[in-house]
Amino acid sequence: MTGSLQLDENGRLKHLLTIEGLSRELLTQILDRAETFVAQPRRKSALLHGRTVVNLFFEASTRTRTTFELAAKRLSADVINLDVQASSTSKGETLLDTLATLQAMHVDMFVIRHPASGAAHFFARQAGPGVAVLNAGDGRHAHPTQALLDMFTIRKHKKDFRKLSVAIVGDILHSRVARSDIRALRTLGTADIRAIGPRTLIPAEVESLGARPYYSLDEGLEGADVVMLLRLQKERMSGYYIPSPGEFFRTFGLTRQRLAQLKPDAIVMHPGPINRGIEIEGDVAYGERSLILQQVTHGIAVRMAVMAMILGEGRGRRGKA
Amino acid sequence: MTGSLQLDENGRLKHLLTIEGLSRELLTQILDRAETFVAQPRRKSALLHGRTVVNLFFEASTRTRTTFELAAKRLSADVINLDVQASSTSKGETLLDTLATLQAMHVDMFVIRHPASGAAHFFARQAGPGVAVLNAGDGRHAHPTQALLDMFTIRKHKKDFRKLSVAIVGDILHSRVARSDIRALRTLGTADIRAIGPRTLIPAEVESLGARPYYSLDEGLEGADVVMLLRLQKERMSGYYIPSPGEFFRTFGLTRQRLAQLKPDAIVMHPGPINRGIEIEGDVAYGERSLILQQVTHGIAVRMAVMAMILGEGRGRRGKA
Amino acid sequence: MTGSLQLDENGRLKHLLTIEGLSRELLTQILDRAETFVAQPRRKSALLHGRTVVNLFFEASTRTRTTFELAAKRLSADVINLDVQASSTSKGETLLDTLATLQAMHVDMFVIRHPASGAAHFFARQAGPGVAVLNAGDGRHAHPTQALLDMFTIRKHKKDFRKLSVAIVGDILHSRVARSDIRALRTLGTADIRAIGPRTLIPAEVESLGARPYYSLDEGLEGADVVMLLRLQKERMSGYYIPSPGEFFRTFGLTRQRLAQLKPDAIVMHPGPINRGIEIEGDVAYGERSLILQQVTHGIAVRMAVMAMILGEGRGRRGKA
Repeated sequence: MTGSLQLDENGRLKHLLTIEGLSRELLTQILDRAETFVAQPRRKSALLHGRTVVNLFFEASTRTRTTFELAAKRLSADVINLDVQASSTSKGETLLDTLATLQAMHVDMFVIRHPASGAAHFFARQAGPGVAVLNAGDGRHAHPTQALLDMFTIRKHKKDFRKLSVAIVGDILHSRVARSDIRALRTLGTADIRAIGPRTLIPAEVESLGARPYYSLDEGLEGADVVMLLRLQKERMSGYYIPSPGEFFRTFGLTRQRLAQLKPDAIVMHPGPINRGIEIEGDVAYGERSLILQQVTHGIAVRMAVMAMILGEGRGRRGKA
Repeated sequence: MTGSLQLDENGRLKHLLTIEGLSRELLTQILDRAETFVAQPRRKSALLHGRTVVNLFFEASTRTRTTFELAAKRLSADVINLDVQASSTSKGETLLDTLATLQAMHVDMFVIRHPASGAAHFFARQAGPGVAVLNAGDGRHAHPTQALLDMFTIRKHKKDFRKLSVAIVGDILHSRVARSDIRALRTLGTADIRAIGPRTLIPAEVESLGARPYYSLDEGLEGADVVMLLRLQKERMSGYYIPSPGEFFRTFGLTRQRLAQLKPDAIVMHPGPINRGIEIEGDVAYGERSLILQQVTHGIAVRMAVMAMILGEGRGRRGKA
Repeated sequence: MTGSLQLDENGRLKHLLTIEGLSRELLTQILDRAETFVAQPRRKSALLHGRTVVNLFFEASTRTRTTFELAAKRLSADVINLDVQASSTSKGETLLDTLATLQAMHVDMFVIRHPASGAAHFFARQAGPGVAVLNAGDGRHAHPTQALLDMFTIRKHKKDFRKLSVAIVGDILHSRVARSDIRALRTLGTADIRAIGPRTLIPAEVESLGARPYYSLDEGLEGADVVMLLRLQKERMSGYYIPSPGEFFRTFGLTRQRLAQLKPDAIVMHPGPINRGIEIEGDVAYGERSLILQQVTHGIAVRMAVMAMILGEGRGRRGKA
């Protein structure tokens, strides 16, 4: 069970693999902990002094890796970045060999990004006692720290998750961010979650996830308090899923004109990096409604919070966990 | 104005973009501060503890990046190295997006190397309050820390900048090092600055910069106290600017024979990495007149000084600057 | 002489280049020191605070580099990783220029991996006073920290080196690990050292090194206390040295069946990364006789010990050494 894989016998976080199975109390505890780091952005903490965090990225993402690297360094951990390409596997070493070897070096935490859904769970199952796994994105499955920073950002600006209308716009089909956000919103009590996009990019199971599908942007944005745009991957732009990037922008892009039709206090979010002129007009991205840069700031704090809760205060040590 | 971009209302350094606009007093203050770091090369300082320095290199240079990395680490900063290639821009993110995103991660200082002249100024103009930019070389424009370490090295060996004859030899046309050195020498009072090289590599505006052109090495070196060689980039060697590398060496290379004709106390400098047998004979590069390795040592100290002056002692913090 | 190159006038370690020339007492001292680090795997030491260690790898090996990086960071050193490709030499800078330049940046220790035998000695001869060189593998010549961690691992499980039968299996010809292991075993008193493999991979001089050649695995393993497998490089698999990888496995691979024929308390080792199904069957690699992961753990401790002995406690500083 996922729940028991992520949590120890006292219900405390052991790995962070997915939002699924985490309680409202635990999500709130993480967000509260992140508040303490946002309040003092430049105070360095010694919580992870002597601990080793390895960023194990099977999918290149300098931006995401940097957020985890900064979070770990601000907690005084030693950080090793490993970009794992085909090369090491071509050396005849399997993924399990790599993981076992790194564990033998007394790594305390692996931050793993992998193109295959389920990879983080796989690694967590193999991890020895006292070794933690953070999922930094696995295939189309989950990206839990992104969902946490999104929730943190919404909470900063909106009072009550239960009364919100949240519109998620774009490529829901391929998005681990969308899956994790919908799950987190549901756990925090949001009932009105809308999945907006062309039919080719809204998966059939969206309703079972807890969101209502909309195939028209204007309809979907009507009365929304929060607009969460998703990144459209370059490889989806070539005609199979959408007619063209320009057509996508005309139909589902957030323009100044559409922004004007939103509720006056609606907020705009995007996990970044943005595609200007595809999901969003450049002016809107850095306009006053946009929280895109706040999301980045909160991303460091949320990652510090998760690392501190899993590894800080003497937790997670071999033989003590 | 450049002056006001680099300096705060009290005339203190806020960014380091170019030597232009810096007073003799400020240059001297930087060199004096660097002395304190040269005196204790292995004492680690806690001045930048809790600060984050990002090396943002749009032009690969392991060597230069390493000097900034070491300087920042010896001041106890957290350092992130980002080599930015076409890839991230191909992801649809503009340079401004990259900078805004990194700032949102609470980076305190960007060390920027970029192939376009003016890039560092551009970034400094976009930087938020409390975020500093160090120019590590932008196009043909400026390389201020190189000029500072060159001045530091000259000052170690020569008493008075005003009485010096300084010969700068080689590819002045494409050299940001030459531009920054000439500017720094002028500010420190040197009147006799000579720009020596083939006509194809001496720009028309050299006299307006404050140097006198020489097209013969022997003439230019006559009576010189300081010989500063420039690196000839590989891409200039293929016939358009010079007939051939060998011909350049015969005409403008510093050989043992030419060394013997210099004033007995003349010193030889080069920003490195040297092209043996093109700008300089191998024996001369590591001979007793050469200060090339001292320049490297001083480069760390000067960069520590600039970082400490901009970010140390509580300066540069958001909301406090 | 190698001995005097590695040791100072008081017989203390100055560089670690090869096992050759190190006494039984010194090897034992290193292993004893490593014990103190194994005992407290997560306690960070301040011994190398303010020191700079550069990993200078002319041959890519993320795995080996990571072990040195972790060892240095756990001693609180600043670590710089430099992967040196043809690129920097193509910039016209020679290896000596690179070394001289890095030394001028006040690097305290170079960890060097190089494809040419003798490279570490070459660098150590050029190193200035107070600058240490650790050989992380040079050509077919030596890999002394691997031999030290192997000896550490054997000592953990076996009482007396003098009474052991040690079987080294595989590509002895190209293996710096084999050379260093044989040397270390001889120094520690092991008389029965066996070099097992096909005739094409057992060099003529193996007997002068102190090992007896065996061309049959079953004969060689008879009564062995320790089985040390070597990694077969991909480039040796294509038919010249061995008929095929499958044939090698059938003839010299360690299978469960062969494992059953070993002495009940025999131990199995491999420097990693393993080639499953070539040198060893997957189940055997992580089976109960295998010490492969312990070797990795011990590798960090042994490298910390060597770094601490060379650079710790005020040793190695310029002008104090």
